[in-house]
Amino acid sequence: MNDSRDPVARIFNSAVAASAIGAAWEIGILDVLNQDGVLNLPEFAAERGLHLRSTSGVVRALASVDIVETINSKVVPTEHFAEVYRTRSFFHWLTMGSGELFRRMPDLLPVANRKGDFYQRDSAAITFSCREMNKFCYDPWFWKAVNRMESSPVVVADLGCGSGERLIQLLSRFPDADAVGIDIAEPALTEAAAATAKAGLSDRITLVADDVLTMAARPEFDEVELLTCFMMGHDFWPRQRCVQTLRRLREIFPRVERFLIGDATKTVGVDDRDLPVFTLGFEVAHDLMGVVLPTLADWESVFEEGGWVMREKHWIGVAVGEVIFELEPR
Amino acid sequence: MNDSRDPVARIFNSAVAASAIGAAWEIGILDVLNQDGVLNLPEFAAERGLHLRSTSGVVRALASVDIVETINSKVVPTEHFAEVYRTRSFFHWLTMGSGELFRRMPDLLPVANRKGDFYQRDSAAITFSCREMNKFCYDPWFWKAVNRMESSPVVVADLGCGSGERLIQLLSRFPDADAVGIDIAEPALTEAAAATAKAGLSDRITLVADDVLTMAARPEFDEVELLTCFMMGHDFWPRQRCVQTLRRLREIFPRVERFLIGDATKTVGVDDRDLPVFTLGFEVAHDLMGVVLPTLADWESVFEEGGWVMREKHWIGVAVGEVIFELEPR
Ligand SMILES: C[S@@+](CC[C@H](N)C(=O)[O-])C[C@H]1O[C@@H](n2cnc3c(N)ncnc32)[C@H](O)[C@@H]1O
Ligand SMILES: C[S@@+](CC[C@H](N)C(=O)[O-])C[C@H]1O[C@@H](n2cnc3c(N)ncnc32)[C@H](O)[C@@H]1O
Repeated sequence: MNDSRDPVARIFNSAVAASAIGAAWEIGILDVLNQDGVLNLPEFAAERGLHLRSTSGVVRALASVDIVETINSKVVPTEHFAEVYRTRSFFHWLTMGSGELFRRMPDLLPVANRKGDFYQRDSAAITFSCREMNKFCYDPWFWKAVNRMESSPVVVADLGCGSGERLIQLLSRFPDADAVGIDIAEPALTEAAAATAKAGLSDRITLVADDVLTMAARPEFDEVELLTCFMMGHDFWPRQRCVQTLRRLREIFPRVERFLIGDATKTVGVDDRDLPVFTLGFEVAHDLMGVVLPTLADWESVFEEGGWVMREKHWIGVAVGEVIFELEPR
Repeated sequence: MNDSRDPVARIFNSAVAASAIGAAWEIGILDVLNQDGVLNLPEFAAERGLHLRSTSGVVRALASVDIVETINSKVVPTEHFAEVYRTRSFFHWLTMGSGELFRRMPDLLPVANRKGDFYQRDSAAITFSCREMNKFCYDPWFWKAVNRMESSPVVVADLGCGSGERLIQLLSRFPDADAVGIDIAEPALTEAAAATAKAGLSDRITLVADDVLTMAARPEFDEVELLTCFMMGHDFWPRQRCVQTLRRLREIFPRVERFLIGDATKTVGVDDRDLPVFTLGFEVAHDLMGVVLPTLADWESVFEEGGWVMREKHWIGVAVGEVIFELEPR
């Protein structure tokens, strides 16, 4: 469709547009276009106190790759809008959440530089995009798996809880339960505390700052019956560490009945030129961070050794081999 | 050519590839491919002490948009390599030099956030990419303009001197001259000092940390006969400030005979979908930073009022309306 245009300019303009998608989403442009089918740019900028020339720059970047079109200050969706709207969280994850990682790509290549905290990402931004990824990727399958539990859990715990959204939803599903959220990132916990307070659930949710890969038992963990872990299970790997973590989680959560791990898995056998949206960014980001992403087969090979039985595997596969494993203690 | 593939995935993958182009250039991959036509990835990584998996990730990102192809660990250039190699500096400018600006795009839109030092860029990275932009955009025309001077200048001064490259070259062209470099950014001056020392020119080049838009006269400026200013003239604008700056430069460089301003100018009347490489990134970046880029006509309208006569206009127009104005004091 764009074969007549300069393909290298298209690569360049796409990079500008990718940031613009993340920005246009965060600032509300994509939602207005999705709901109303049109946006009056000067009015929109004035109402929300936005710098008009910069906001026009964002729209222009979208227009350069056929996502919107501007006719007399009126912005309307075009060709690729619907698909961009569907996948907006991936663009935000790439450009806002992981932008600093990709910006410093050349510095991260020499082995000598890969020591200590050698990279940075924006955990608040990642929390923002993950909330949407949950909604459109995991949620339907997540609730299906939750609803297969025989009885209501006394306490639920979420590993790498991010914004706390999952716990808040679980407590509304299980009105008698309490919850524990564990995360390593302070910005994520700050957001989770705010969301918990806003939902009036501060007395039912305990937030813990700790590293899931090394944390010890705590009294709060004793009654946990449902354990969930979404979009961070790949951090358990490589294999040996994953097995140890799975074993340790069994021990420090002695009453656990069900463990739901939902995550993206590494693609196998897709030509680089045919990678769907997200996969390349997700995989290269983890290469840069030195995280070895497991494949579906890798996961299936560790559960037994880690002390768990796989009851069910919910294959989602929206973008990057998303899957939810439903585990029980062995 | 890519009409059969998912166009939104192509936008996403292009964003990853844009960073990979910058990284691949900085780390030497593009140069090896350009010179040898092939690169053995594991050997290359081992020789240069690079993390193999990350380096493979870089190559994979290039492959996703048809810049290279990998066959049995051997990387070879494909379809778009030549054009990407030619324009590599623009990708580096976008993703490394200006990456932080684009990453924070959503935060820069509310007017309330646009106060004080509201954005950051990597001035060392920008210096790196500008050196290459000079070589392939400005240099041929620059030397043509320099060689039109009737006599050798006693002292040359470069405004916004960056890495100092231009001054070093001018001193080799004019073996009896001295030079003054002015820049506002400490990282640029540090690099310029190192380059000057390496060239054995420390005693002939004075480096000054100052703001070209506000600086006062200095004894070092008294004998300057040739004044140059490349890729920063747009910072003179808007109009009133530009006129004042042009006037002040005449005063603080009392003996100046020739003033060469080389810069990109704002495009006029190009459809957003037909923007060539660089333009969109360059213009949106300046929108975000709140810098109003002048058009060619804008520039031509200020010289007389600013106290200068335009002797010649060298139109380059490689990517973003690059031009060199050759001025004389009125
Ligand atoms: C991609 S986010 C997903 C957040 C949330 N689970 C969700 O579904 O939206 C991953 C989260 O895991 C946290 N995390 C990563 N490694 C961790 C570790 N070793 N211990 C605890 N939390 C970790 C991060 O701080 C981040 O909040
Ligand atoms: C794009 S770089 C170009 C560097 C160099 N002139 C060249 O041709 O490669 C612009 C340079 O101008 C400097 N600069 C920008 N605004 C300035 C100002 N107001 N005063 C002094 N230097 C400035 C920047 O720090 C940077 O080094």
